[in-house]
Amino acid sequence: MNVLGYAAPSPAGALEPFTFERRAMRPDDVLIDILYCGVCHTDLHLARNHGGFTTYPIVPGHEIIGRVSQVGEKVSRFKAGDMVGVGCMVDSCQHCKPCLIGWEQDCAEGPTFTYASLDRHDGMPTQGGYSDAIVVTEKFVLALPDRLDPAGAAPLLCAGITTWSPLHRWNVGEGSKVAVIGLGGLGHMALKLAKALGADVTLFTRSPGKEEDAFRLGADHVVLSSDPAQMASAAGRFDVIIDTVPYDHDVNPYMPTLTLEGVLVLVGYMGPLGTAVNAGGVVRGRRAITGSFIGGLAETQQMLDFCGQHGIVSDVEIISINQINQAYERMLKSDVKYRFVIDMASLKS
Amino acid sequence: MNVLGYAAPSPAGALEPFTFERRAMRPDDVLIDILYCGVCHTDLHLARNHGGFTTYPIVPGHEIIGRVSQVGEKVSRFKAGDMVGVGCMVDSCQHCKPCLIGWEQDCAEGPTFTYASLDRHDGMPTQGGYSDAIVVTEKFVLALPDRLDPAGAAPLLCAGITTWSPLHRWNVGEGSKVAVIGLGGLGHMALKLAKALGADVTLFTRSPGKEEDAFRLGADHVVLSSDPAQMASAAGRFDVIIDTVPYDHDVNPYMPTLTLEGVLVLVGYMGPLGTAVNAGGVVRGRRAITGSFIGGLAETQQMLDFCGQHGIVSDVEIISINQINQAYERMLKSDVKYRFVIDMASLKS
Repeated sequence: MNVLGYAAPSPAGALEPFTFERRAMRPDDVLIDILYCGVCHTDLHLARNHGGFTTYPIVPGHEIIGRVSQVGEKVSRFKAGDMVGVGCMVDSCQHCKPCLIGWEQDCAEGPTFTYASLDRHDGMPTQGGYSDAIVVTEKFVLALPDRLDPAGAAPLLCAGITTWSPLHRWNVGEGSKVAVIGLGGLGHMALKLAKALGADVTLFTRSPGKEEDAFRLGADHVVLSSDPAQMASAAGRFDVIIDTVPYDHDVNPYMPTLTLEGVLVLVGYMGPLGTAVNAGGVVRGRRAITGSFIGGLAETQQMLDFCGQHGIVSDVEIISINQINQAYERMLKSDVKYRFVIDMASLKS
Repeated sequence: MNVLGYAAPSPAGALEPFTFERRAMRPDDVLIDILYCGVCHTDLHLARNHGGFTTYPIVPGHEIIGRVSQVGEKVSRFKAGDMVGVGCMVDSCQHCKPCLIGWEQDCAEGPTFTYASLDRHDGMPTQGGYSDAIVVTEKFVLALPDRLDPAGAAPLLCAGITTWSPLHRWNVGEGSKVAVIGLGGLGHMALKLAKALGADVTLFTRSPGKEEDAFRLGADHVVLSSDPAQMASAAGRFDVIIDTVPYDHDVNPYMPTLTLEGVLVLVGYMGPLGTAVNAGGVVRGRRAITGSFIGGLAETQQMLDFCGQHGIVSDVEIISINQINQAYERMLKSDVKYRFVIDMASLKS
């Protein structure tokens, strides 16, 4: 079937309307009318080929909320009319060890990403949520809790699960001391989720002026990382640091703020840490530098259900699809609080 | 009381005979006639002031085995004639959180090291085991199991506990897959201990020719880290990697050989990792770069008892104290299998 979307035609080109084909429904497929799609930094990176592997045209978008319009004959969990979400992945091998334990994001054969992948059955390029409809195998469709605002819920599918997964893995709860580095799309979700889990929450920020927002979003404390005295006073404090910084940065100053066996979890950056990591920072106190990559399907549903119970959504600025190129420019200046979400009704107007 | 030892008089000077004062016995002190003392890389680093904080003269040595000759009135665990060990520490604050949980090595006020520290009660510089006797508070004296050869047991007090502690922390046992990077004093102990714990053990080495020794010491497999094909075939294999390399090195090639949530544990190096650590190596598969620093007192006794049960000692080359300067030169060329131990009787001859 043909659907309408917005695609980048080339690394330098602005996103523009694009009609493309979605696959015919398979027995285990769900057809979803897309209502909202969040705008993630990854969308921009891949649209502009920062990784060097983009093929064009590319339709970004992996924070998708929509309504089911049709289901295949083998689908049991969803029916037409259900509100659902789709995140960063739409398929995986389903038989490797990571898949079998619910870590589809670490599928040994590589998961099929929502866009910029090849479908593992028919070989067609996958295209993302900046479009009016998507076809996804039932296993990779999430149920949206009734209570959640659908526009605000869209970023939960990437920013939400990316920060939830490490909080969950490291048993954050009542009595935990959690710090978050960076106040962007990921960071603001980390504050909300850690607070709702019962933790004592600190925001590390490089520049003053974010205190009011940080406290509103769930922080109990704000530490200015550019102030040596404030950093020294935080020594030995945190069980878990969620590091959301999306570019190369120096992790060394944060290590002494961890308690014994504390962990710094990188969630926003996959490249080289250009400032030499000091081995002493992990040897003393048995601290760790680790990371986390989105999260599995069952864990994503768990996160959505938790957000439903606690009324947690992302703080969003809703835009029309024809504002997407301007939104990318604003993202590059961190000029968004805290996530752009496209109202996909604008695609039809 | 005056004792005889060997001290470095200056950063460039050879170690030479040196008579110095040990403190008078306190009620909780144990006086130990030193029989053997292992030679650790740290001895050389501090004797030559590589850290920039050595005061001279310095008597190195923190792998001490001896016989109790006298005990203070409050000592209950030891009596004259007992065979005992002393490791890297001789005191700590005993009231901070790390001390209370048995992590004296991470004492919040800093432990008193066996040499190159100041005694926390009388302020005298501590001097190490290259000497005929030492006075140590009972809490920091370890019981030597009967079965163990005292010369071979000396390196257990540093090399043994340094590799035992992370194996124990990460629950290595039957079914675990453990790799060891580097085959020196620490590495050869890591092979022996991991094997005795029931693990499947692999040695990573940069150069061929170490297979025979590695297998004899406990390795089940040897992977040549300079061979990309061998490295690729080890992908996803290890639960724990004990990285004993004592200098700056590139940890990135080892990260993909860890299984999901696997940990690389630095135990031999505290400085900057000059080759940029790739964040993707920890983000994907939630792997971790962590470290471990010697071990606490209770854990050290546990390690000694385990070695007693399994008949594990270090492979040593016994030297006379007047060979110590030559031994340092040979250590710099890795020309020792696998630890020099000084027979302290040579001090009297």
